Amino acid sequence: MRDFADRVKRLIVGRPVPSGALGETLLPKRIALPVFASDALSSVGYAPDEVLITLAVAGVAATVVSPWIALAVVAVLLIVVASYRQTVHAYPSGGGDYEVVSTNLGSHAGLAVASALLCDYVLTVAVSVSAGTSYLAAAVPSVSPYKVEIAVGIATLLAVLNLRGSRESGGAFAVPTYLYMGAIGVLAVTGLVQEATGALGSAPSASYEVVAQSGWEQGLTGMAGAFLVLRAFSSGCAALTGVEAISNGVPSFRRPKSRNAATTLLMLGTISALMLLSIVHLAGATGVRMAEDPATELLSNGVPLGEGYHQDPVIGQIAATVFADVKPMFYLITVVTGLILVLAANTAFNGFPVLASVLGRDEFLPRQLALRGDRLAYSNGIVVLWLGAVAFIVGFGASTNRLIQLYIVGVFISFTLSQVGMVRHWTRALALATDPGARRSMARSRVVNTVGAAGTGLVLLIVLLTKLTRGAWVTLLLMALLFLVMNRIRRHYRRVGQEMAIDDLHDARVLPAHVHAVVLASRLNRPTLRALTYALSTYPTSIEAVTVDAGDGAAERLLEQWEEADLPVPLTVLDSPLRELTRPIVSYVRSVRRESPRDLVVVFLPEYIVRHWWEQVLHSQTALRLKTALLFTPGVVVASVPWQLGAPGQTHVHRGVRATTPEGIADTDVASRRAEARRLRRAGSGR
Amino acid sequence: MRDFADRVKRLIVGRPVPSGALGETLLPKRIALPVFASDALSSVGYAPDEVLITLAVAGVAATVVSPWIALAVVAVLLIVVASYRQTVHAYPSGGGDYEVVSTNLGSHAGLAVASALLCDYVLTVAVSVSAGTSYLAAAVPSVSPYKVEIAVGIATLLAVLNLRGSRESGGAFAVPTYLYMGAIGVLAVTGLVQEATGALGSAPSASYEVVAQSGWEQGLTGMAGAFLVLRAFSSGCAALTGVEAISNGVPSFRRPKSRNAATTLLMLGTISALMLLSIVHLAGATGVRMAEDPATELLSNGVPLGEGYHQDPVIGQIAATVFADVKPMFYLITVVTGLILVLAANTAFNGFPVLASVLGRDEFLPRQLALRGDRLAYSNGIVVLWLGAVAFIVGFGASTNRLIQLYIVGVFISFTLSQVGMVRHWTRALALATDPGARRSMARSRVVNTVGAAGTGLVLLIVLLTKLTRGAWVTLLLMALLFLVMNRIRRHYRRVGQEMAIDDLHDARVLPAHVHAVVLASRLNRPTLRALTYALSTYPTSIEAVTVDAGDGAAERLLEQWEEADLPVPLTVLDSPLRELTRPIVSYVRSVRRESPRDLVVVFLPEYIVRHWWEQVLHSQTALRLKTALLFTPGVVVASVPWQLGAPGQTHVHRGVRATTPEGIADTDVASRRAEARRLRRAGSGR
Repeated sequence: MRDFADRVKRLIVGRPVPSGALGETLLPKRIALPVFASDALSSVGYAPDEVLITLAVAGVAATVVSPWIALAVVAVLLIVVASYRQTVHAYPSGGGDYEVVSTNLGSHAGLAVASALLCDYVLTVAVSVSAGTSYLAAAVPSVSPYKVEIAVGIATLLAVLNLRGSRESGGAFAVPTYLYMGAIGVLAVTGLVQEATGALGSAPSASYEVVAQSGWEQGLTGMAGAFLVLRAFSSGCAALTGVEAISNGVPSFRRPKSRNAATTLLMLGTISALMLLSIVHLAGATGVRMAEDPATELLSNGVPLGEGYHQDPVIGQIAATVFADVKPMFYLITVVTGLILVLAANTAFNGFPVLASVLGRDEFLPRQLALRGDRLAYSNGIVVLWLGAVAFIVGFGASTNRLIQLYIVGVFISFTLSQVGMVRHWTRALALATDPGARRSMARSRVVNTVGAAGTGLVLLIVLLTKLTRGAWVTLLLMALLFLVMNRIRRHYRRVGQEMAIDDLHDARVLPAHVHAVVLASRLNRPTLRALTYALSTYPTSIEAVTVDAGDGAAERLLEQWEEADLPVPLTVLDSPLRELTRPIVSYVRSVRRESPRDLVVVFLPEYIVRHWWEQVLHSQTALRLKTALLFTPGVVVASVPWQLGAPGQTHVHRGVRATTPEGIADTDVASRRAEARRLRRAGSGR
Repeated sequence: MRDFADRVKRLIVGRPVPSGALGETLLPKRIALPVFASDALSSVGYAPDEVLITLAVAGVAATVVSPWIALAVVAVLLIVVASYRQTVHAYPSGGGDYEVVSTNLGSHAGLAVASALLCDYVLTVAVSVSAGTSYLAAAVPSVSPYKVEIAVGIATLLAVLNLRGSRESGGAFAVPTYLYMGAIGVLAVTGLVQEATGALGSAPSASYEVVAQSGWEQGLTGMAGAFLVLRAFSSGCAALTGVEAISNGVPSFRRPKSRNAATTLLMLGTISALMLLSIVHLAGATGVRMAEDPATELLSNGVPLGEGYHQDPVIGQIAATVFADVKPMFYLITVVTGLILVLAANTAFNGFPVLASVLGRDEFLPRQLALRGDRLAYSNGIVVLWLGAVAFIVGFGASTNRLIQLYIVGVFISFTLSQVGMVRHWTRALALATDPGARRSMARSRVVNTVGAAGTGLVLLIVLLTKLTRGAWVTLLLMALLFLVMNRIRRHYRRVGQEMAIDDLHDARVLPAHVHAVVLASRLNRPTLRALTYALSTYPTSIEAVTVDAGDGAAERLLEQWEEADLPVPLTVLDSPLRELTRPIVSYVRSVRRESPRDLVVVFLPEYIVRHWWEQVLHSQTALRLKTALLFTPGVVVASVPWQLGAPGQTHVHRGVRATTPEGIADTDVASRRAEARRLRRAGSGR
């Protein structure tokens, strides 16, 4: 059985890889950009869609504000980029927000950021994979009924690839990311040129009428209108997710690490902003129409489109318009955008396990998360992330629109706390610094981070206001739970650590005063004899054999054989009127402990080990149950003396020199004791 | 978790009962009859039905032979009764067919009988419960769509009652059995009187036309007709099942046991024969019509009855006719017949576990089957029977007609072998006996058993001929499998027994020459120290601590601490480039064993035991995996030194007198050794 499980694991995960293979290659900027950019850039694949869908609630007229929303998002983006450029300089170790906040605002704030980030990694996978599946459905419409299955399949594939330890080599990321940037660039430039020359066509959905939801017939007016715009804005802020990734990756950059990272961050911000602005602009110019429920809210000649209509993503629609006559370009753009979204999900598969391993090392999460698996990946973290992402994908039907309501909260909580932490960092640094030049630079950085904290804090507030009831409460609840659980885990490990700490090394040289050996016997056979002789060879201060009388006559038979064999150890028979085996033995051992609580009791357990799993059925699993029960009894050591059934060479193993007489081992004379002492002398120096 | 499982078990099974409660009460004949008769008498509830259904294949005219078939069945019944009266005298110990055949025809034949009986017990439950459910459906027609569910429910209820150890007290059986005999008696007498006075009405189904199956339009003619009659006869022989029960129960009778048992057997045979004959006669007289598939094969005014028709059992139809104006009598007869069928199933719940326990004791089945459960019942056997019966009920849709094809084969195999065994028994006895009176009586018995063997053998042949392709092959296959498995189990136990047998008791006094202690350490904490001190206290010939370097720096830290602590035991560091823990340790231990194969290696394993099951997640289960792996390594003893997290009083347990210096325990001088030897002297006499 175990062999089979092992073989299945090998098939999925591959052969184990030695630790030595773990090496870090330093990345030049041109490779670092695609490696860290896919998450941030990919959000252009869904952020414009969400803005348009939210605004469409108030009818098609409302979508005119979308460029302004895009500008606001870009403003926040630039603030965040500027802020993280400071972080990159101040914390080149790559600890990211968790390190910044833990160091500056204490471990509780750090734990809050960790909870937020963990949730957000899970949602990154769910959102990116779901959005990527939409692009696949745009290219191959027939797959759209199987979105959930496909999304789960992609997430599983990513998990397996990461379990196999296919660590992102720069090249694997560089090609599709540059292809994506190029494709969107060509799309944007071609579209803008077409617009300037008046050659820009209308999107396939431009002719549809958008039905405003009830209560919104007047368009964007009053407080409600403002609220809707804010909601659209917070959805658009999804474009900011992943910007912080570079701050975790500083150690991977070539020297000067911090400066190169900061430059890359700026490049990333600029490209991201340009993409977002041009896509939102072209969406308006081509007249793309989006709706939350396109089946009922989009009308063609006054008739709802119905369930048959598949709403293609914005980039897909723009590509179909701009390259109406160049079908291959449409397919390229759609496929590459889908691919980049999957790559974005893959970055979460890198980030989550690393963060979880840091938290495991810090004892906020099970320590197993800090162990590298067979292929050097943090396997346990990968599996947890996969389970979480699949739960979200299935739970929300792989709908980007529904998942996006849960997203971003976590990102902005960590953005805000991180920026506050940076402000505190600079304040502290200023208190110590004396060099005027350095002080000036620090003060400037502090201003940038203060603006960052205020900006991201404001966005967080907007996100909470507009999304709390629409799903963000799920994320907050999850974060709170994670926070509490991580705290409890830490408390558990602390308590255990304190309990196990050695206060006095003298303990190490104090042996137990009295050792009472209990040998369990059910029949007088060779396994029992082996347990007995081994027990005698440990020179316990007292020894007895114990058997249970379950009323079936076996105990009487054993007693007879025992007397006949004239063994050097007395046999105690425990009555068991209820025919149990475990309970009488455990309570007997407990009573021995109670009588002399400072003694150590060692239970010697002859155990039969069968060769085939099915043979287990033929031997009662008493030994296993007894071991488990005795492990919970304080002050008891359990020694399993196994007898491997059918194993060769068991017969003549233990014929040795330390012979005893029927009276036990007591008559060993002083001379032989001395000889023994000589042998024992070697104990200190090992074999 | 275990507590919860335990509580659920208590709820189902009840509180355990001490072994002392196991007492045997001796039964007078008037109580013994109902206790042992329910199985045999209950078959009147379905045997006539099966005869009529089989004959109906050739149309309604064919049913005229049913009284002749009943007479043939009664003839066989009387032969079997006469034969078992001999068994009862010759084997008063109650071992039944298994004992008779094993003793006289050898263990292989005995095993064949055992396989047959085990299969038949399972089928008794399935058939009886299914038939009982039909009676319930006759009384309450609305339940008929849920026959399978109800049958499974009844089987489960019986299993639970038997697990609770509600051993049949005579009274519980006497009331319904006598009620049943009385009810059928009243029905038969009233019906016969009505017939004599011309007052007997027609059965509800008398007006229906029976459609002969295709090929049978000519009725019972030729070889095919004879074959069909034989098939009807073998179905009718179902009435014989359970007759052998008394031969297993001789020890429960009052003295003179054998004679009382023989008398009871005769009473049982007579009642059974009378019932069968009168029911079959009345079925003909009232014109009961039965068909395999009543929906298509019964016509009312030329129109098939369709799926809505529920075919009531024969006794139900006769009761409805005879007591057309006395509805309560109809309900009484139906309900009591259903109840007696359930009681018949219950006798299998007594017989199967006892037979399985005998086979377990004889090592043909897992020995656990011979253990009495909490309530003194053989729980494991009950559970196995329940599983088997439920499988048959579900697999055959609780259809008595389909199940009956599988039944009886086993019964007649054991009947026949048992009678052959009895013939051998008398032949042997005759060879030894000298007293002419005794010899005459033995010779007479031998004639009876020879007739029995021939008769049952002939029936077995007929059953095999007519039913093999209709389902009996399933039973035969199952029996063959059981036979092979039981043989293999016996071989396994034999091999194990030989391997573990002690050929030379001198072994018991020979201690292992060299004991090499390996203490596993991952951190230097109190659990590790405890394992270390305990290992030292066993005075191994050599000792070392071992840790695994998985490349995470933990091993280096441990090495430093180890040197700092100046411990009296050297630390060996095992390299593990693949970051595994189990494999390096196991292969190291193996290599130690290889170097000195005559040594004993003891691995001391510090183990943390958590208080709550969820805390398990926080501690890697390395210890458990290691223990399992090491148990499979010959010549290795595994000593678990547990540390119960949070358990009180662990701190000061082991401060004792056997102090060692940093140089180890080697400088203990001769004087202290002597003192120790005095202490060890007590080892022989225990505590």
